[in-house]
Amino acid sequence: MSKLVIVGTVAFDAIETPFGKTDKILGGAATFIGLAASHFNIDAAAVSIVGGDFPQKYLDLLSKKNIDISGIEIVKEGKTFFWSGKYHNDMNTRDTLVTELNTLADFKPVVPENYRNAEIVMLGNLHPIVQSSILDQMTKKPRLVILDTMNFWMDSALEDLHNVMKRVDVITINDEEARQLTGEYSLVVAARKIHTMGPKYVVIKKGEHGAFLFHEDQVFYAPALPLEAVFDPTGAGDTFAGGFAGYIAKTGITSFENMKNAVIYGSTLASFCVEKFGTERMENLKSLEVHNRLLQFRDLTKFDIKLP
Amino acid sequence: MSKLVIVGTVAFDAIETPFGKTDKILGGAATFIGLAASHFNIDAAAVSIVGGDFPQKYLDLLSKKNIDISGIEIVKEGKTFFWSGKYHNDMNTRDTLVTELNTLADFKPVVPENYRNAEIVMLGNLHPIVQSSILDQMTKKPRLVILDTMNFWMDSALEDLHNVMKRVDVITINDEEARQLTGEYSLVVAARKIHTMGPKYVVIKKGEHGAFLFHEDQVFYAPALPLEAVFDPTGAGDTFAGGFAGYIAKTGITSFENMKNAVIYGSTLASFCVEKFGTERMENLKSLEVHNRLLQFRDLTKFDIKLP
Repeated sequence: MSKLVIVGTVAFDAIETPFGKTDKILGGAATFIGLAASHFNIDAAAVSIVGGDFPQKYLDLLSKKNIDISGIEIVKEGKTFFWSGKYHNDMNTRDTLVTELNTLADFKPVVPENYRNAEIVMLGNLHPIVQSSILDQMTKKPRLVILDTMNFWMDSALEDLHNVMKRVDVITINDEEARQLTGEYSLVVAARKIHTMGPKYVVIKKGEHGAFLFHEDQVFYAPALPLEAVFDPTGAGDTFAGGFAGYIAKTGITSFENMKNAVIYGSTLASFCVEKFGTERMENLKSLEVHNRLLQFRDLTKFDIKLP
Repeated sequence: MSKLVIVGTVAFDAIETPFGKTDKILGGAATFIGLAASHFNIDAAAVSIVGGDFPQKYLDLLSKKNIDISGIEIVKEGKTFFWSGKYHNDMNTRDTLVTELNTLADFKPVVPENYRNAEIVMLGNLHPIVQSSILDQMTKKPRLVILDTMNFWMDSALEDLHNVMKRVDVITINDEEARQLTGEYSLVVAARKIHTMGPKYVVIKKGEHGAFLFHEDQVFYAPALPLEAVFDPTGAGDTFAGGFAGYIAKTGITSFENMKNAVIYGSTLASFCVEKFGTERMENLKSLEVHNRLLQFRDLTKFDIKLP
């Protein structure tokens, strides 16, 4: 088992979907990553920042899930990062209604002393300079660094993004972002270009259409489970990343073969995340439920053509 | 081995993609279906109509591929159905530039006498009344009837479409069409509604995102092979259907398990079809190439999580 460091937002979200709307609820990349990774009972720490308005019960929730929260700075006089968004009817697109950076604007993450030797580092979506600063604090080179990012940083901090990309092993990115980053429509070609930017492993997330894992000339594909209803997609990408990182940390194996399994775990956990608003489904997820859904995933693509 | 009857257009296409454009070349649903099905060396007949302008060499091509063409009516004084389209840069959308029905406007298909007892019937995309008329001519109930259709008939002949749907076992339809036909966004729910309209098996094609096969509460998913470049998507859906029907005819087994393999064969053959303009790639496709790509398909989704 390896130690896992997770950096990302711990935040308030207010979400509107065709199924309803929420007040401010628990959200943030590090929250979703942590909840997903906690499924593996690993030694993980979240590095983040919140304001004095952040309820203790949310921090307790993470602690109870065995996530070390000593790296979550609490700025008593500050306010917690707040995001509000509204999903369109197809659930694939959304409008951001509110983004209040608050304490996040001056976030200088500090990795707790006893996690600076962590083997696995999961850099959740944040400014690339903040992501880089985590790597600067590691006392030994991690075995695997995973980077999540988004188009916002391609538009506003492309050079910084390229700098942090050179330092990571795995990048998780969605299909449109992969196209934007490379100018290539074919995801095969886009992945090859992203390889040359640094990451030896490229995960391209296609939402309801599943995810690709590219490595050199190899490719693996995990479908998304076909669901009757997607209730709230918020956090699905982070949950995928958390499942991926958590599985790698649990097994301690960073081979391409093992990453396939990590992608399947990520997809499986993400398929639960979207079933309820915010973190609700992930907070109460049972091992048996995960196990049963893994069986569904296995059967989904299984066929038996006799090939010599 | 079962006999296979294929009905559909045999046509001229003129295609423009970001990679180039063609003059009038061989096209049509029955052509692509036939070329794909011919891979299985089965006893298949194409039922269609062409004009006096249709080159003998194209008919010879089908004959050489072991497709019985006695059911292709040649109207000497008429002209062959002609379609012209232009694909957008993403290759997922296209504009129809020209549709000249010509002889197709009065197509009254006649199934050759010795194919009226065929076990497998593939109804390529045509007016639903024409599709129904094929079933009326069968002297015994086929073991499996497969229907392909498109949104055009939902807009213009919905009642006729519902009538033929009641008589078929399998429908192949794309995701947007499944949503249009049912008013449901979730493909799981859409498939369930389509079941109630007749077909016990529902194939939902998602283009570059693969295909689902639904049957009762079961679901199978075949990814599309990630390609470096899609050269010309024309005929990919028909090739998929032809591979599906051809494999079922070859094996003579109509179980859900065997249909999974049929979907994989359909996806595999379609992945070749798009690599060149029109029928070019399918005309010269070798068994070994198909075999090797099947291996790629198998590896694409294979993972090894130990599950008790």
